[in-house]
This record gives sequence, C-alpha cells and structure tokens, in this order.
Amino acid sequence: MNARRLEQQITFILEIDKLKKVLRQTVLTDSSRQENSVEHSWHIAVMALCLVEYAKDGPVDLLRVVSMLLIHDLVEIDAGDTYCYDGEGTKDQRKRELRAADRIFNLLPADQAAQIRTLWDEFEAGTTPEARFAAALDRLQPLLHNYSTNGIMWRTHGIEKGQVVARNDPIDDGAPDLWAFAAYLIDDAVEKGILAE
Amino acid sequence: MNARRLEQQITFILEIDKLKKVLRQTVLTDSSRQENSVEHSWHIAVMALCLVEYAKDGPVDLLRVVSMLLIHDLVEIDAGDTYCYDGEGTKDQRKRELRAADRIFNLLPADQAAQIRTLWDEFEAGTTPEARFAAALDRLQPLLHNYSTNGIMWRTHGIEKGQVVARNDPIDDGAPDLWAFAAYLIDDAVEKGILAE
Repeated sequence: MNARRLEQQITFILEIDKLKKVLRQTVLTDSSRQENSVEHSWHIAVMALCLVEYAKDGPVDLLRVVSMLLIHDLVEIDAGDTYCYDGEGTKDQRKRELRAADRIFNLLPADQAAQIRTLWDEFEAGTTPEARFAAALDRLQPLLHNYSTNGIMWRTHGIEKGQVVARNDPIDDGAPDLWAFAAYLIDDAVEKGILAE
Repeated sequence: MNARRLEQQITFILEIDKLKKVLRQTVLTDSSRQENSVEHSWHIAVMALCLVEYAKDGPVDLLRVVSMLLIHDLVEIDAGDTYCYDGEGTKDQRKRELRAADRIFNLLPADQAAQIRTLWDEFEAGTTPEARFAAALDRLQPLLHNYSTNGIMWRTHGIEKGQVVARNDPIDDGAPDLWAFAAYLIDDAVEKGILAE
C-alpha cells in the first residue's frame, strides 16, 4: 500500500464533506427546508438508475452517467451554488468553477485528479450522450421539486414560464420522453397558477 | 412511451426525497450538525469511485457497488436509522427494514422493483466481493467522521474501543488495506483520549 496515495484520497474524501453545506434554490418536496447540493447529487444519481431507459442515443454507459452526477457539483464547495436564473451570478460562474476544479480535484493523486477532471469537463461540455442524459436529470429533478411544492421558489423569485422552458429545454437533448413529461408539468403549473405565464 | 410506467418511476423518485429527513448518529466533519442518510449515501458512493483499487478480490463491478450504496439506506424512510450501538433498536431492525423494502421498492415497475430488491438483498447478505467492499465503505465513512470530530458521538454515547473494533472489523473482509488504516485511526483515537479504551 502507498501511504501517501491513501492520504491524498482521504484528504479529498474529507474535503468533499463541505458540499453538504452548500444550499440550493430548491426546497424538499415537503417544503420544510432548502436542499443542499449533496442531496441533489444523490437524488439525480438514483434517478439515473431508474430512468436510464429514456436516454437518447442509448444505451449509455450508466457508470459514467452516475459518476458524472455524483461529482458534477463538487466545484460549488468553493464557487457556491449559482441560481440558474441569476443573470449576474452566472456571468463569472465558469471562471469561479474552473478555479475550484483545479483546487479540489487536485487533492487526489494525479491519475485520479485527471480522471475526475475528464468526467467534469465531459459533463460541462455536454457533447456525449452520457453528458446530455446527465444534464437532463440535473434539470428534471429541481423541476419535479418546484412542481411538487406549488412553485414556492418560482414564486419567491418571480420566475415565468418562458424562463423555465428555456432552462429545461436541454432535457430534450438527453431524454426526449422526459422532456415531453417536463413540458406537461410546466404547462400544468401555469394552469394551476403556481407558475406565471 | 408507457405513461403508467413513467408515473410509477416518478412516484418512487418523489418518495425517496424523504430519506433527506432521516438523521444519523454521525455529525458533519465541521461538527455543525448531524448528517442525514442521503448525505451518507452520496459520500460513500463517491468514496467507492476513489477507493475501488482497495477492494478485496478485485476488480469488482463498480456500477454494482455504487448502485448498492446509493440505495442501501432507502428502507430507513420507513424503518428509521438504527444506531449501530443500540442493542434494543437492532433487535427488530431486520423485520422493520424488510417491511420497508416491500413497500418502497414496489413503487417502481415490477422489473425495476425486482432489480433494486436484488441489489439490496446482495448488500444485506454481504456474500459477494461487491457487497463486502460496499459494506467496508459504509463502515469507514462514519469512522472518518467520528475521528475528525474528536469523537463527539463516541463520547456522547459512551462508546468504547472494543465496540468500535467489532463494528468496523468487517472492513477487513471488503478492503484489508482500508482496515489497516481504520485500525490505525481507532488506536490513535484512544491515544488522543477521544475514544475510551
């Protein structure tokens, strides 16, 4: 056993505990509190296991999808969660996240740092069927939460249908059947008066 | 697309949100609060990605390990988290968890309910290299947290070294190198006075 290697791995494992403290602009389905980025990451990883049959250009490499989803938000430990409808915050998001990726992934031994960076870059680029399916789940989960909580966060932030459609439209690139379902939820939310037209 | 099938899958996905409310007898590494079972599940799934090289009888099927870890605590939605050192609680734990598995997994379409039940049974039985490696990570993570937080929970519950060794000894069956590391942490914790001899 290489003690230095294990030490680096354990340092990374302890560091990522901090993601449990990063809150998102989504509430749990019982509306009791905001969820954090770890809870979101776990939820979409399990969704990948359940919904993989809907991946466009499938069958996809499910381990790759799940791995991407588990690590896709780690950069938020340094960069924070940027609310997708926050125009100002999203401006320098990429720069902040790149700096975070450099620091956090490099806590791992070099070979593993390179592997996780490749996964994260693939997710960010969205150019593979795996990345597009992963991105679809990353969008669908908060939509499900918003819909289930009578749009609390949409109403709090004054979000309108056009913004939600634009935000969730990439679901179509990764999982067209799930986009059909998402589009139904969005229309129904407007119908119910929990999302502004 | 089979609308009934997707409806069952979404029902399951919304139901498992409840696991975010199940608190464990482990605190975050900054000692700020207890962690929940979703956070624990995510953490050990990422640990599997980083530590798979230590699996005994490897190489193991990593997707199978990660899938097991992501779903292994879902039964706690109904059965609650049973503290591993709670003699009374562990008595009927199996019965409570079996009932929970029946209800929760069967929200999914029958083929997927059977798949997830097979995964959970495999984890519980611990008879495959994948299940033993998964179990090792399930033990190692709370040990890391306990060690990093000066044994708050050990001291709160009056836990002694012999109990911690007995609890974590299965790490040896799944990842002997990680057990060597765990045994070092336990000895060091006694040395530091954060775990009773």
